[in-house]
Amino acid sequence: MSPLLLTLDFVGTFVFALNGALTAVRLERLDVFGVITLGMFTGLGGGTIRDVLLDALPPATFVDWRYLALAAGGGLLAFLLSRRLDRLAVPIVVLDAVGLSVFAVLSAYKALDMGFGVVQAMIVGTVTAVGGGTIRDVMIGRIPTVLRSELYAIPALIGAGCASAAYSAGYHGTVAALGSAAVCFVIRIVGVYFGLDAPRTRGHH
Amino acid sequence: MSPLLLTLDFVGTFVFALNGALTAVRLERLDVFGVITLGMFTGLGGGTIRDVLLDALPPATFVDWRYLALAAGGGLLAFLLSRRLDRLAVPIVVLDAVGLSVFAVLSAYKALDMGFGVVQAMIVGTVTAVGGGTIRDVMIGRIPTVLRSELYAIPALIGAGCASAAYSAGYHGTVAALGSAAVCFVIRIVGVYFGLDAPRTRGHH
Amino acid sequence: MSPLLLTLDFVGTFVFALNGALTAVRLERLDVFGVITLGMFTGLGGGTIRDVLLDALPPATFVDWRYLALAAGGGLLAFLLSRRLDRLAVPIVVLDAVGLSVFAVLSAYKALDMGFGVVQAMIVGTVTAVGGGTIRDVMIGRIPTVLRSELYAIPALIGAGCASAAYSAGYHGTVAALGSAAVCFVIRIVGVYFGLDAPRTRGHH
Repeated sequence: MSPLLLTLDFVGTFVFALNGALTAVRLERLDVFGVITLGMFTGLGGGTIRDVLLDALPPATFVDWRYLALAAGGGLLAFLLSRRLDRLAVPIVVLDAVGLSVFAVLSAYKALDMGFGVVQAMIVGTVTAVGGGTIRDVMIGRIPTVLRSELYAIPALIGAGCASAAYSAGYHGTVAALGSAAVCFVIRIVGVYFGLDAPRTRGHH
Repeated sequence: MSPLLLTLDFVGTFVFALNGALTAVRLERLDVFGVITLGMFTGLGGGTIRDVLLDALPPATFVDWRYLALAAGGGLLAFLLSRRLDRLAVPIVVLDAVGLSVFAVLSAYKALDMGFGVVQAMIVGTVTAVGGGTIRDVMIGRIPTVLRSELYAIPALIGAGCASAAYSAGYHGTVAALGSAAVCFVIRIVGVYFGLDAPRTRGHH
Repeated sequence: MSPLLLTLDFVGTFVFALNGALTAVRLERLDVFGVITLGMFTGLGGGTIRDVLLDALPPATFVDWRYLALAAGGGLLAFLLSRRLDRLAVPIVVLDAVGLSVFAVLSAYKALDMGFGVVQAMIVGTVTAVGGGTIRDVMIGRIPTVLRSELYAIPALIGAGCASAAYSAGYHGTVAALGSAAVCFVIRIVGVYFGLDAPRTRGHH
């Protein structure tokens, strides 16, 4: 992985850990270790599932201490920020969208680098992107965001699809990755901002 | 895997996805993508856990696009059926029993084909059979069926046991598989129909 | 693994299964198979996650029938004990602390034996120790103990750290393992007894 893409992966891990831990802080029932633990699960969960699906065990999130340190650091920062809780609703959504975008694209790249097909790259990109937040939600007893309203899995799927298309066309580099991540990020943020929801089942109408 | 057994595995994936997604539809809180996502988790979750336990990574459910397509298709069908929701209680139970039976038997076969012992075949058959539904229930915040009343893990264990016994006696074929699945299916349906429960702890008497 | 360490691993599996199943019994909503199933998930879950992280698949908890039998036996014993439920609050806490200590130390040893570093040994020891109880809590719809108050992950981390330090200093044997497990056990029990909690976020003050 190029230095810039590795940096992006670190950024994704950190912001997801920060986001998961901030979510924990808003619950207001967890101590400092609970906050850090939830941050680590959120930051490292998606990448661990990715490496199981790609048969890339032991997972990079476990072998490379920098992932562990960044996830723990994100959790600790969330705990320290907890006095400013009332201002954190927007950052939580933005951080989550950043992590979603970065993980969708980089995991699709990893799958393609390992020789998997485009379908697998898109699936693993999406699963990695939504995995950390899903583990976070299951652990705190919420219906996972990926199941609830608002576009969540779809931006990840589109971002992973853009990355896979660019990769297949020979663009493996940083620009294609950043562009694909930006597509995912914009769709996610627009979806949240305008409260765009996909069609629902009868019960909601 | 013989064509007929592979077809059965596809059937199990599809009906579990359909079942998981119908369960989501009954919740009446999910949009179309949430319904499809829950269907995919339900249809593919058990087989993924199976392939982790058997060290058969990357999982067949991930590498073979037909599993992915069938699981997504089952979820989409459930969304389209959601207007007829009031008639779906019986199909949900029957589809679940079909998936339970098929996965218990085929996963036991897979373990035996890979050289694992009979005990491992029975365990992995049971875990695969109950895995998808357990993930579904955890994600929507319900106590998993496998823990609640009604015979659920036991029919799967018996079906996987019949398949293992037949396999050990030299019957690897379709008839033995269908027969073992039928045993599991009948026990499960009889259990649901008559409300048969295993002995309970004091609190219930 | 030396016979005594293997015995300790069996003890950890049994007491975690017993603990998870007793927790289920206190819920008073599960039948005998639900109780045994939850006991098996609790007893075998941590070790299974450990072997995924260490790329030691198929997991020892699945391949070795003795783990399966001990976990099922622990669950069955819990069901049989369920008439004496009112006396079980203390044993549940003590059994959980025993399993926590044993798994933290032995899993750190396993990682070091396989050539992983000290950081990985401490992480995998902690994850294995808290893994079974976390799966138990998620399945019954509780916020996991590892996130809630009371020192839980930290004693495991310290125990795994002691074991790693001793191992690195050349002490691979039973005494170092028992000593490290004792450190974890004492910290956990003292934490529960005195209700020691780590610093909390604003909401609790």
